[in-house]
Amino acid sequence: MTKPIVLVLVRHGESTWNLENRFSGWTDVPLTATGRTEAISAGKLMAEAGLAFDVVHTSLLRRAISTAHLSLDQMDLHWLPVKRSWRLNERHYGALQGLNKKETAARHGPEQVFLWRRSYDVPPPDLAEDDPRHPRFDPRYRDVPASELPASECLADVVARTVPYWKSGIVPDLAAGKRMVVVAHGNSLRALLKYLKAIDEEAITRLNIPTGIPLVVELDQDFRHLRDHYLGDPEVAAAAAAAVAVQAG
Amino acid sequence: MTKPIVLVLVRHGESTWNLENRFSGWTDVPLTATGRTEAISAGKLMAEAGLAFDVVHTSLLRRAISTAHLSLDQMDLHWLPVKRSWRLNERHYGALQGLNKKETAARHGPEQVFLWRRSYDVPPPDLAEDDPRHPRFDPRYRDVPASELPASECLADVVARTVPYWKSGIVPDLAAGKRMVVVAHGNSLRALLKYLKAIDEEAITRLNIPTGIPLVVELDQDFRHLRDHYLGDPEVAAAAAAAVAVQAG
Repeated sequence: MTKPIVLVLVRHGESTWNLENRFSGWTDVPLTATGRTEAISAGKLMAEAGLAFDVVHTSLLRRAISTAHLSLDQMDLHWLPVKRSWRLNERHYGALQGLNKKETAARHGPEQVFLWRRSYDVPPPDLAEDDPRHPRFDPRYRDVPASELPASECLADVVARTVPYWKSGIVPDLAAGKRMVVVAHGNSLRALLKYLKAIDEEAITRLNIPTGIPLVVELDQDFRHLRDHYLGDPEVAAAAAAAVAVQAG
Repeated sequence: MTKPIVLVLVRHGESTWNLENRFSGWTDVPLTATGRTEAISAGKLMAEAGLAFDVVHTSLLRRAISTAHLSLDQMDLHWLPVKRSWRLNERHYGALQGLNKKETAARHGPEQVFLWRRSYDVPPPDLAEDDPRHPRFDPRYRDVPASELPASECLADVVARTVPYWKSGIVPDLAAGKRMVVVAHGNSLRALLKYLKAIDEEAITRLNIPTGIPLVVELDQDFRHLRDHYLGDPEVAAAAAAAVAVQAG
């Protein structure tokens, strides 16, 4: 029997806007001290599990990039080749980015905000085309065709832009025998898992990925999902997943 | 008149073994708090000079990699594509790695140590082939042909392995119009400058590159050196270069 192909997914830890209860999306907020500790702890869990990698993939956002640095440094794998893609970014939260979640609920009603946060296919209002925060003004996205740059996204949109990266960015590295860790965000990892595990549109909105706890995914030789498990104590992972459910978005 | 091509070189700051006065070479020691501050200061200098980049090249050693992280984060360029090569590593210091510089001078005589540290073509004694510190046991070098992995290097050896990277790694990116920062080490940067500026074998041993002060190199359209200058106060750069002359190696 051939050994399964292993892929590890890590969701970054607490950012300053998690702490302030604001919608982050593509806003490039840094990790808090807690978030940095979570990243180091993720590295320790991976080292203790005897994992090693040949390449790391990250989004273009600081909280994922810092998490990759800190966890890989912990594993003495700071020298790994790095690949980055906007397709691994967090969901774009449109005009809600920067707003406090409670205030937004007070203004738009909790049902509407729940829909924006948890429905599969209802995106928040678009960021205006001329808003200086629009990704078209950000140099890191200058090679992305304007038609592909989001001004707001629902989870369905995130699935639509992460799956091409699975096929063109991740699978080729796995096919080349490269052991890989992907450091990204709640919704981009959720989108990948939806595709890999063929989770339906209703169930995926209830899937919560804990921060800073690496998910080891085993794939067959055709890169299809076989099974997965979180590193460390399963109860800790379950509690962490329940905790992020509260602050999702 | 066409504008010159600009390339920025940054030498990492103080590492723990600089502080302990030990030969580092390929030993993967971290930056000290001072070294981290130097990296952040390098980022500030580059941001203040209005520099921006499309790609960063680093060695495979933590002190250069961390310097790149910290300085680019300061510039909001943490998301840059990263290229790494062992050819940008510090000079391999052979069997001297880990030894205290003063103790080594006491044991082998100051003339011998001066020769190892400052001659162009006298390498220190080899690290034994079966020494666990030999690069052939380090996973980061596993794709490097065994015949190319050094067990000790003189500056001439460093020139011989960095110049191919200039040609195959750096020039193609510059030719593609990519603005680049190279974050590396005293001797690998010295080797690049020897080649670029056609410095002779005697003069190069007296060239001192200050740590944490970016060197802006201007090249013509054939990637030949036109001129260069350190960012910030020239007196500060000169004093910093004089300071590293003392601790060279």
